[in-house]
Amino acid sequence: MISGVLLDLAGVVYEGDHVLPGAIDAVARLHAAGLPLRFVTNTTTKTKQALLTRLSGLGLEITGDELFTPGQAARAWLDAHDASPVLLVHPNLEGEFQGTAGRTKDAVVVGDAGKAFTYENINHAFRALVDGAELVALAKNRTFKADDGKLSLDAGAFVAALEYAIGKEAAVLGKPSAAFFESALASMDCTPQDGVMVGDDAEADVAGALKAGVGSALLVRTGKYRDGDETRFEPHPTETVANLPAAVQWVLAQLS
Amino acid sequence: MISGVLLDLAGVVYEGDHVLPGAIDAVARLHAAGLPLRFVTNTTTKTKQALLTRLSGLGLEITGDELFTPGQAARAWLDAHDASPVLLVHPNLEGEFQGTAGRTKDAVVVGDAGKAFTYENINHAFRALVDGAELVALAKNRTFKADDGKLSLDAGAFVAALEYAIGKEAAVLGKPSAAFFESALASMDCTPQDGVMVGDDAEADVAGALKAGVGSALLVRTGKYRDGDETRFEPHPTETVANLPAAVQWVLAQLS
Repeated sequence: MISGVLLDLAGVVYEGDHVLPGAIDAVARLHAAGLPLRFVTNTTTKTKQALLTRLSGLGLEITGDELFTPGQAARAWLDAHDASPVLLVHPNLEGEFQGTAGRTKDAVVVGDAGKAFTYENINHAFRALVDGAELVALAKNRTFKADDGKLSLDAGAFVAALEYAIGKEAAVLGKPSAAFFESALASMDCTPQDGVMVGDDAEADVAGALKAGVGSALLVRTGKYRDGDETRFEPHPTETVANLPAAVQWVLAQLS
Repeated sequence: MISGVLLDLAGVVYEGDHVLPGAIDAVARLHAAGLPLRFVTNTTTKTKQALLTRLSGLGLEITGDELFTPGQAARAWLDAHDASPVLLVHPNLEGEFQGTAGRTKDAVVVGDAGKAFTYENINHAFRALVDGAELVALAKNRTFKADDGKLSLDAGAFVAALEYAIGKEAAVLGKPSAAFFESALASMDCTPQDGVMVGDDAEADVAGALKAGVGSALLVRTGKYRDGDETRFEPHPTETVANLPAAVQWVLAQLS
């Protein structure tokens, strides 16, 4: 029995600067059905507050509790580990890490730094790792769909670059980290088995959720979806549907 | 019986803009003993001709035949595959690829691009791969010792980034590619078993050569060598020695 819904944002609810057709209404139908929901995004180019403001501007009013970002997970990780960040993130995200200097150890934090992925910045992070810093990835997505509509290299590639250079693996905080899905579900008193995830990334959203024990996961054919994605990663999606309205229809059908 | 010697350049013969102590004399001792030798370098920030000029300026006079570079291996690969390069290399190396436009297919060629490793350039290469280009790596070294004396991120990290993003492996042309070691040895009529490799990179030079079937491989404690490198990668070096003069002494002792 589904008792909680996890939704990706970019490529599912909006794309670039426009809302996808029927998305706002689909979210409203979930709310009307009394189903608790959480938006779990790997977007790391905006602070949580900036993202809420943007969603409101697009016509999607949600509370801070309904939004889970890797930035907030990273801040919690740094606090729990008494670590100061060496940031390789988008300049917009730096505000998320205020007041974390001068702690007992360092951790390189990698997000989608965009144009800040210069050789100099990446090498600065690498040298901190050589000096013993931990490696923390906000996300390890391979690709995202850029504003020009083409696939672009996402933060995961740069995480992989640093992992290769130092020969050890990053702690990944966003999707597909099981802890990320679990804490989002737990915040609405939903067990993993009773949750459903909806996303456009067959690997990080769908296979990731299923590996984390989420009961079902739907792949939508919007956003970064490419032909064949439904069989490209294991486990395969519970269902592959056209878009968010179709996913919501599937979810509501499970309730009746 | 050793009948051919392979030598790395940076970190073994020179470092930054100076020759390492005793290196020129050590090379002269090999020449005097009648041992054929080849310099096998993964340096990809200079054309072969520019490298020869630089070595001459440092007091090391060698012929073009004695120098093997990944740049020349890449040019040969592109010619053999009738492919045009999408270059993610140091601007200095672009001259190596003149006259290769307009062929039947594309290949992304990755070298140590240095400051040209911008997000825009890396993403341009990624998009070519998405469109079906092959992926060719001049080298896959993790690190090199920069002019400031600190370890820096080498091309291998960016190769790993692209491999991760597209989910397939690059063809690696420089060390530790077996073909690279083999063709350098074959050019002096030396079988792999009768060859010896001398390098400061425990992985690409030493373990790479031994995996390629080279009879012995010596690790020198100069250049990028760090404590513990002799046991960090399999197979371990045949011997670990202080520097190039000590390596040459070891080689000459095998002859007597």
